[in-house]
Order: sequence, then C-alpha cells, then structure tokens
Amino acid sequence: MHSSVYAYRLHSLPSPSQTRIRTRSPTRNPTRIRMTLRDDGPSVAIVGATGAVGQEFLSVLSDRDFPYRSIKLLASRRSAGKVQTFEDRSYRIEELTTESFDGVDIALFSAGGSISSEFGPIAADKGSVVVDNSSAFRMDPAVPLVIPEVNPEAMAHIRLGKGKGKGALIANPNCSTIICLMAATPLHRYAKVLRMVVSTYQAASGAGAAAMEELELQTREVLDGKEPTCKIFKQQYAFNLFSHNAPVLSNGYNEEEMKLVKETRKIWNDKDVKVTATCIRVPVMRAHAESVNLQFEKPLDEDTARQILNGAAGVVVIDDRSSNSFPTPLQVSNKDDVAVGRIRQDLSQEGNYGLDIFVCGDQIRKGAALNAVQIAEKLL
Amino acid sequence: MHSSVYAYRLHSLPSPSQTRIRTRSPTRNPTRIRMTLRDDGPSVAIVGATGAVGQEFLSVLSDRDFPYRSIKLLASRRSAGKVQTFEDRSYRIEELTTESFDGVDIALFSAGGSISSEFGPIAADKGSVVVDNSSAFRMDPAVPLVIPEVNPEAMAHIRLGKGKGKGALIANPNCSTIICLMAATPLHRYAKVLRMVVSTYQAASGAGAAAMEELELQTREVLDGKEPTCKIFKQQYAFNLFSHNAPVLSNGYNEEEMKLVKETRKIWNDKDVKVTATCIRVPVMRAHAESVNLQFEKPLDEDTARQILNGAAGVVVIDDRSSNSFPTPLQVSNKDDVAVGRIRQDLSQEGNYGLDIFVCGDQIRKGAALNAVQIAEKLL
Repeated sequence: MHSSVYAYRLHSLPSPSQTRIRTRSPTRNPTRIRMTLRDDGPSVAIVGATGAVGQEFLSVLSDRDFPYRSIKLLASRRSAGKVQTFEDRSYRIEELTTESFDGVDIALFSAGGSISSEFGPIAADKGSVVVDNSSAFRMDPAVPLVIPEVNPEAMAHIRLGKGKGKGALIANPNCSTIICLMAATPLHRYAKVLRMVVSTYQAASGAGAAAMEELELQTREVLDGKEPTCKIFKQQYAFNLFSHNAPVLSNGYNEEEMKLVKETRKIWNDKDVKVTATCIRVPVMRAHAESVNLQFEKPLDEDTARQILNGAAGVVVIDDRSSNSFPTPLQVSNKDDVAVGRIRQDLSQEGNYGLDIFVCGDQIRKGAALNAVQIAEKLL
Repeated sequence: MHSSVYAYRLHSLPSPSQTRIRTRSPTRNPTRIRMTLRDDGPSVAIVGATGAVGQEFLSVLSDRDFPYRSIKLLASRRSAGKVQTFEDRSYRIEELTTESFDGVDIALFSAGGSISSEFGPIAADKGSVVVDNSSAFRMDPAVPLVIPEVNPEAMAHIRLGKGKGKGALIANPNCSTIICLMAATPLHRYAKVLRMVVSTYQAASGAGAAAMEELELQTREVLDGKEPTCKIFKQQYAFNLFSHNAPVLSNGYNEEEMKLVKETRKIWNDKDVKVTATCIRVPVMRAHAESVNLQFEKPLDEDTARQILNGAAGVVVIDDRSSNSFPTPLQVSNKDDVAVGRIRQDLSQEGNYGLDIFVCGDQIRKGAALNAVQIAEKLL
C-alpha cells in the first residue's frame, strides 16, 4: 500500500534548482534498518496509517531518526490485519478502537475530522499527546495550533505524560496555512503584516492519494481522447483547474479559504490581521504554490526581506531574476523546506510597505506529516 | 496546418456548465461555405496566418460572418506557397513583404513584436488600418489600445481609408489584460477601482501552438516515466507550474506582469490606478484564469456586483455557491465570453470597498483573435 503515493514519477523528476534545496537522504527509504529502538523514547501511534499522510508520517519519522520506543499503526477495520514493513520490522495494522491508546505517549492523527473528533479526546484522556492533522480542533481555544518554526510557544505548557500525566491535543494547521506562514512569518516578525491577499495553486494530494490517482488516470484518458473519470472531483481536473472543492459558506468563501483567514489569526495571536484568500486546485501532484501579497505596518524593502527569508528556519530562497529561476511545486516535492521567490516591492503600495512573494511547499510533507512530527519532536 | 491547434481533445471535452455559456456554432468550421463575399466589405490581410492566433483570426472571421471583400494570408518565407482552405476557397500563403499591403483595408497582425515593428508602419503608410496583437505599439501614446467592450472611444477617430486616406495602428492588449479588464471594467465604471491585486493561472497557448504541443508531449513522457522534452520552456511544465517565462525586469516584475500594470492604466485612462500582478503558467491548454482582488473608491456590495456583471457585454457569470460551480479554463475554451465567478465581499477590507473575483477567458480567442476582429468590426 506504500507504493501508491511514491510510485509516481510525476513529482520526482529532477529539476534544475533542486540541488539548492536542503537535501534529505536522496533515496526515500522508509524501510531502512534502524539498529536499535530507543528504550527511553516515546511510544507512538499513527491513526490513519494507510493514508497518504499516514504513510508520510512513517517516512518522516524514519528520515529524522525520531527516537520512538514502539510504534503502533492504526486504521479502519477495512485495513486491519494488513502488514506494513517499517524500518526492517513488520507491523500488523490494527483496527482503531477506544482501547488503542493504552500506553501511547504520542498519537499522530490523520484520518479525517470525524475520527479525530471521536478518538482524539479518548486518546488524550488516556494520557496521549495527540497531534491532529484534521480541522476538528484547530479553532478550539483550548487546543494549540502550531507550526514549530512559527509559534512553538503555544505548546510550551504541554508535556509528555509517559503514563503519569494527562494527555493533550495539539492541532496541525491546514497545509495552505502552514506553507503561507512559513514564508510570511519571518517578514511579519520584522514589519508586522496588516493585510495579506493570497491566491493558491493547490495540488491533488490535498484531497488524498485517491485524488492523485484520479488526476493521473484522467490525464491518461484525456490524452487518449476518452471521457475523463470523475469520482473524487465532479469535473475534469486534467489540463484544467477549478475553485477548491471545499464547501462554500454564506460569505462566499470556501472552507479552505476561511482556514487561511482564521488559522493565521490564531497562529499569529493577532485577531486584527486582515486576510483574504482564493483557493484553486491545479493539476499538480503533491506541492502547493501560493501567490501572496503583503501589506506591512513598517517599511520593509525587498533586499531586507530576502535577507530575512534567507536566514529563516525551514525556508529556502529561490529568487534568481536573471535566469528566471523561482520556486516550482516540482522542486519542493518530497522536500522539507518551503521555497520562496519572486520577492519584490509591491508597485501598488506606497513606499516600502508592500511586498509580493511566491511560495511553494510539499503539501504532504511540511503541509502535513513533517509539521506534525516536528511538533512531536518539540515534546521530547 | 490548421489541425495542430484544434486537434486537441485536451480542451474540448464537455463540462457541466458549458451550456450556460453563450453558444457559438457547436462545430468549429472555418472552412464552411460562405455563398457570397461582400463587394462593399474591406479587403483583409492576416499577418502570421499560420500561427495559433492567425488561424484563430480565420475562425473568428468566419464565425462572425465578417463581411470581407477579399482576404490575403501572409506569413514568413518558410510558409509561403502552402495552401489554406478557408470558407470553401483556396488561398496560397504569401510571403510578407513591403508590397503586401497595397489595397489592404484592414491588416490583422499576429507574428510577433519585431514583425509588427517593421511592417506595421509600412502597412499603415499604405493606407491599411493595422490591428496589432503584439506588444510593439501598445504603450505608444499615438496608438489606441482597445478592448471594444471597454474603451471603444479610444479608436473613435480612426476610419477605414479604403484607398483614399491614411492608415492607422490600433493595438490589441495583452491576453491577461483583456481577460482581467472584461470583468473588472463594469465594476470600475460603477465604483472606481483604486487598487487591483492579480494572480494569474496562464495556459500554454500564450506561448504559441508549439508550447501547447510541448505540454502534451511532456505529459505523455512523464506518464511513461521518461524525462520530459524541454524546448519551448526550460523546465518541466507537465504536472508543474512556474513563474511566467517573460524576462524579469529590474523591479522584480516580469514583462507579462508589467503589461497588466501599464495597459490597465492606459485602457482605463487612469494613471493613478494601482495594480500588482503575479503571472504564473499552469499546465492548461488554451484559457487563462485570474484571481483578482479589487479595492474601490465607492462601496460596492457583492449582489450589485453580480448584477452589473450579469448585464455586461461579453461576460458570463458562473457563480453557484451551492453546487460549487465557478468558471474553469475548460468551460471557456473555444468560447467568446469571459466567465466570472467567486464574486464575494473581500473580508480583508472594511465595509463594502473590496471584492474578490475569479475570471476565466480563452487566451487565443477573446485574449487575442476575437478582440482584434471586434476592433475591425468597429471600423466598418
């Protein structure tokens, strides 16, 4: 089951600037041998282990040598009993039940909002710290919403119980928010963002592995002159784009857009920051792009902005005007860092109070699994 | 040679809302029989007749029953001598020379900026009215830059010479500008746009028929696990997107973006309007999309905006929140109208002074050939 997400060569072909991105192990090898587990590490459970993000949790844990004592793979009854090899050990996928969290220190959830709503509090009651990738708890004032590079302080009060204390819930922001704020926050710290106008170019992966497969299938069909199969999306996606498929609210924004609006306010702890967003799905596999227009309280020139972003953790600047080299989704696919480029003074704002930037980030990785594992690392 | 642009089924598959768009003849038939030419019509020359836009000129002239007396197809020496069938007549492609414009009333140019720079003034000197699709004359203060639905008054002083008078130059705006302003102008007339933040999602066709072919070829290659062929673009385009390939200027904007900034000011005759743009190429065949954030001088609520756009010539509103039906590039491919949707009050601006909209238009048609032919019609 692991192959479905990684089999694509659609997002793994080399690109010219790829070498400029911080390197990870060149071969993705979630089954590499780890010689010893750590007796003093936490016990980890993965909820939704068979999904695109669930599988990426495993990759990231392995890539980062996350020091776990034990790992437990949880999924729906349908997947229970299947065997997954991970770091030279075989694991039987277990069905998620209310008993699943006994002795679990850290539970990484990515199985949709309703599973999180039901089982997240149960896990926390049993003493687990839950890092939840769904939207279920993001706007709950009692639950920290964390990007480790941006607002680690929001989770500073949470400790691993190790069987002794109470657990807790921590929410992973939405992928578009994470990718946007990775680039915008360093600038915000310097000059305070007053207003942000975001237009997204979102990949198939945000709708899960099946959506990536549908994009590939549709593309083959259209190239063969056949009617495209529309199961996940209600319309042709290949060689097309459309407004994000999230439900549209009475104010005309869709839920994806409102996540950017609301999560930014919460993460920045700034209820006054003005955000508008237009979220669009484009026929790209697994990395999002975002065009971000920023208005600042203090002047911020483009050279200073570039310098700030060059020094920002988890951010890589790709901004070569002479060779027209700027971030692309393909460059950041399977990469940890968020790439930012097209950094320029906004001509439509007076003085140096505005900037335009273009940001790309891997939706499954920093937009989901990596961010959650980084949160877990902060707990250690 | 005609087939290369229309052979794609990549952009002609039916989509749910397609029927809502103003219909043209369902079968594209540039070779349909016209029973009589019009003796009182103008003589027309097409410069760059073998290109994507040149071929679309022919389609549009035919679709609109443009009343020409005679037609002349001009191209480079390479194409000269080839035969093109058009409306049941055969035409031999002629090599473009300084003698080509004798007796020509209207010359539709789409052969690149350097051809226009050289031959546009020659044609005008011979008495032709030149409608030029290149950027050569757009910012020339003596040359009107016209979208017929937007600023027909700019060309009101120009008359067809019919062999008697001097000719003239009229410039067709850039495709992104036309598509954006078709939707923004009706709102601008009501509430005056002070500032506009545009992010584009631009199709392959803007870089010509060869770019469309490269996108198709690359897509097949990537699906087959092969290295993609990069001739027109320097990087992988299939399942990817990138900052527009136009040269980047010292202010960090690329030329495509600056066209939106400068052409808007000229077309609206408003040197104070603030515009910023981020232009991105997406793997779509022939229609552009644009996310447009608007700031107005006067309040404009979203219902009024929808009503205004519903009544605007050349615009179709696709804006059904309950069914998540909004404009897509595929819906407007091969269509005349520009589609607008996602019309909503901008949450990031106080009161009713801001709107977000999403616009799609066929790049080859309204973005180029149709607009030029509409200009020619105004001359009759």
